Amino acid sequence: MTDILLVSTTVAERADAERLARTMVEQRLAACAQIERIEASVYRWQGALQQEPEWRVEFKTTEARYAGLEAALLAAHPYEVPAVVAVPTHTVSTAFAEWVRAECPLPDGA
Amino acid sequence: MTDILLVSTTVAERADAERLARTMVEQRLAACAQIERIEASVYRWQGALQQEPEWRVEFKTTEARYAGLEAALLAAHPYEVPAVVAVPTHTVSTAFAEWVRAECPLPDGA
Amino acid sequence: MTDILLVSTTVAERADAERLARTMVEQRLAACAQIERIEASVYRWQGALQQEPEWRVEFKTTEARYAGLEAALLAAHPYEVPAVVAVPTHTVSTAFAEWVRAECPLPDGA
Repeated sequence: MTDILLVSTTVAERADAERLARTMVEQRLAACAQIERIEASVYRWQGALQQEPEWRVEFKTTEARYAGLEAALLAAHPYEVPAVVAVPTHTVSTAFAEWVRAECPLPDGA
Repeated sequence: MTDILLVSTTVAERADAERLARTMVEQRLAACAQIERIEASVYRWQGALQQEPEWRVEFKTTEARYAGLEAALLAAHPYEVPAVVAVPTHTVSTAFAEWVRAECPLPDGA
Repeated sequence: MTDILLVSTTVAERADAERLARTMVEQRLAACAQIERIEASVYRWQGALQQEPEWRVEFKTTEARYAGLEAALLAAHPYEVPAVVAVPTHTVSTAFAEWVRAECPLPDGA
């Protein structure tokens, strides 16, 4: 496994997806973010099945930066219980992994 | 790693994607499901390359519920050899992980 | 964990996504490939935040074939620093896993 993580969250509005994506990359909590359309999200709410479109934002970051990214996403997210899900990586091409690490270093003294 | 899994399958028709998503969440084999459009799926069939649109359904469930989810997907799936692929999670935000577990508990006595 | 990997890369043009998908499956470096639209990719370039649509290509291959797939993707990719990211799988339905292995075997004598 590598130290690079794929961290996803979902939101209802495209504007929120863009805000979260840009904020986390600006703050160097992630190297980059990809926004994708979810045609339908199915879940139970107050006993009934719901089905609504959403947007997924997937960030590429490092294990060292994960705690900061999760905290910032939870603070900035419009949902009451946001999903922040980190998937491990088995292998990442060397030059790209180095780019990710360089783009979201730990702050000095951290 | 956590006990939360991201389990995906793909189908050719949107109606099948919705049926599988709703059925598994209704049966509490997964907490939620997201349906996304695959613009093109490329694979070899009877010696020739095929390229067709598909739909991906990604479920969030637990390791304890995986066997039940896989069996139900294989039984309900329209394909002869369905893809059911579970990806592990490195970390999941605490409140969301608790919500997933609460939404798809093992049946009493399991 | 299994020996099946989900390997993704991203490109700016749909034509490149299709070319990479078809080439790798034709060369049996992967069993199949799914192309999905990324509505917006956010990253920093020369000090400024960029936001552009992209295409993701996700391949299903084996650990044994990964090195060959990564090398071929890096050689054929239009970017200067392509992202090639392999995600592990926790579990894969048996018949599908067997299909993946059969579709992208190691060359004789490898």
